[in-house]
Amino acid sequence: MVGPLSPDSVGLVEPRSFRHEQPLALDCGRELPGFDLKYETYGSLNAARSNAILVCHALSGDHHAAGWNAPDDKRPGWWDNCIGPGKPIDTDKFFVVACNNLGGCAGSTGPNSINPATGRLWGPDFPIVTVRDWVRSQALLADHLGIERFAAVAGGSLGGMQALQWTIEFPGRVRSALLIAAAPRLSAQNIAFNEVARKAIMSDPDFHEGRYAEQGVVPRRGLMLARMLGHITYLSDGLMRQKFGRELREGKLNFGFDVEFQIESYLRHQGETFVDRFDANTYLLMTKALDYFDPAAEYDGDLARALARAQARFLVVAFSSDWRFAPERSRELVKALHTGGSAVSYAAIDSPDGHDAFLLPNEHYFGVLRAFLNRVHAELEVAA
Amino acid sequence: MVGPLSPDSVGLVEPRSFRHEQPLALDCGRELPGFDLKYETYGSLNAARSNAILVCHALSGDHHAAGWNAPDDKRPGWWDNCIGPGKPIDTDKFFVVACNNLGGCAGSTGPNSINPATGRLWGPDFPIVTVRDWVRSQALLADHLGIERFAAVAGGSLGGMQALQWTIEFPGRVRSALLIAAAPRLSAQNIAFNEVARKAIMSDPDFHEGRYAEQGVVPRRGLMLARMLGHITYLSDGLMRQKFGRELREGKLNFGFDVEFQIESYLRHQGETFVDRFDANTYLLMTKALDYFDPAAEYDGDLARALARAQARFLVVAFSSDWRFAPERSRELVKALHTGGSAVSYAAIDSPDGHDAFLLPNEHYFGVLRAFLNRVHAELEVAA
Repeated sequence: MVGPLSPDSVGLVEPRSFRHEQPLALDCGRELPGFDLKYETYGSLNAARSNAILVCHALSGDHHAAGWNAPDDKRPGWWDNCIGPGKPIDTDKFFVVACNNLGGCAGSTGPNSINPATGRLWGPDFPIVTVRDWVRSQALLADHLGIERFAAVAGGSLGGMQALQWTIEFPGRVRSALLIAAAPRLSAQNIAFNEVARKAIMSDPDFHEGRYAEQGVVPRRGLMLARMLGHITYLSDGLMRQKFGRELREGKLNFGFDVEFQIESYLRHQGETFVDRFDANTYLLMTKALDYFDPAAEYDGDLARALARAQARFLVVAFSSDWRFAPERSRELVKALHTGGSAVSYAAIDSPDGHDAFLLPNEHYFGVLRAFLNRVHAELEVAA
Repeated sequence: MVGPLSPDSVGLVEPRSFRHEQPLALDCGRELPGFDLKYETYGSLNAARSNAILVCHALSGDHHAAGWNAPDDKRPGWWDNCIGPGKPIDTDKFFVVACNNLGGCAGSTGPNSINPATGRLWGPDFPIVTVRDWVRSQALLADHLGIERFAAVAGGSLGGMQALQWTIEFPGRVRSALLIAAAPRLSAQNIAFNEVARKAIMSDPDFHEGRYAEQGVVPRRGLMLARMLGHITYLSDGLMRQKFGRELREGKLNFGFDVEFQIESYLRHQGETFVDRFDANTYLLMTKALDYFDPAAEYDGDLARALARAQARFLVVAFSSDWRFAPERSRELVKALHTGGSAVSYAAIDSPDGHDAFLLPNEHYFGVLRAFLNRVHAELEVAA
């Protein structure tokens, strides 16, 4: 059974909004005059308020991580296969919190919110936000929810970077951190892909220097290109071969520039559907947060020193065919954490699914998450 | 000394034009009513007319492979480091021919030529041309030059695909073939990158369905994006790290969307300069020729059977950090050629320069080319 009534689903969930009235100082030197965070929770917070897990989203994710917002939704939250009763992030044991990050386009304060100073949409004037800004705003949400210390902070890709930042920024507030398909910082190639994506959006004539909403248009072409390009980096070459090979959509070459190969059709579809649900200014902000993430920078590039503040127990997970954040990037993390004195488990998962693997069910992967979190949960019981 | 007077330069060269008046039947089922090929030659054809080497260009190359067209040119031909007196492709020994391919934008018949049937520019109506079409047109040029059999056909990347096609299409007319940084066909990922590049060009509002020239505009934004994306695939991740790392252009983050990291600056510069010298419709045609190249297709995907017709001796060269056409793609070629009964030398060159390595001087690489061609030359002497 699939759907909100399935016994392993968190069921119907209602997003909520957390309003923070005080200004938030940002890394860029500007401040947000108050903000909203859209969030969802699954499971129940225990009496000791010790069983909360914060799930952080990646580039295009949001607060809707699990369950269904309406009975007739076409699909559940983005990590529904992993979060629910009896699932690896087990809502029978844990209280799960997921929020849409600042700068997002799913209900949290971002480019589509009103800038109180001008009464207009923020649009391109929304400040550049960093992973650290997100973590600080998430901590204010945790305060609001009465969570002093998370049992775990977990995320894949950019979400994993947030989990890592939590352990540095608030060492005392994170019992464990799950860093999945992440990296300690982007490579020049990663930044290059982001730059082409941004250039595609910003050079779309419908971008209007970010004020497209006020013009009643959307830079569809640019955002679509950005997403198509993203998808190339999310899939492995092997998976593309396996899924699409050189298959022709109509069985033969048409000697024209219409879609011919199945892979073209797949990418265009991914691009087209994305444009309907995502905002271009948010895409720009998310890629900048990725580019800027570099906790070692304040320590002369010494990642181990940067991570020495952490007190959490770590689980680092990498996928064999991920070439966006390859396993060697995860091993950099593991090495630096070890050197910095942290307890780290490392799982290298054999998977053909590329970077996308962090979002897909996989017995070994889910087994590792489950085992790690079972241990975290057992310690909560002992502590209680 | 660098420049046309350098003793190892072929010096000042004047491009010529070959006019073929008869129609050329193309793979797409259409025919070109006559065509021009722009070409250059370096060195002297010997009395036996046996020492000619055809050099085939890659996606963005042209007929100007070596030497200088004018004394004040900023740079020489695209493979000048490899072609000249005493260089690996030694013009003291060989007569080198290089032409701009059909569909090109450097003087051969292409989208910017007049379609005699309409009196207008071909533009987007120029037929899709394949690697086989190119090889057939190059054979007509060879006829014109009185070259019955090439001592070698050589090329890197898409140029290597042409060299391979020569050995299948005209087995008796190729003594040896140099396939450098090539592949027997594109992977789904290769096609995906091409598709995003095409989409970038075709979705530029200045593209006007390919009739931009008649509108007096150029789809600069799209072509620039295509080139930036191309460059990511030409460089290795390691080289990017080494050349650009995460270096900031102004030493610190500017918390905005201007160019910040050195890699961004490099890519934008590459994109901007390309737009001034290359044509968007040609870019589309070249990527399609890449996508379509698949000599095994007519043999139920059996590459060895496809290559069994070949009579040439082969040199296959791959570069360790090339991820566009990785060494394993070259080994596919080597294996199929062996199975098909050909004589093959294979050189795996250790290089940090990614796919671009085929254009760059490298002692091991150039030594291999030199040794292989010396042997080809020695055989010519024996045969004479």
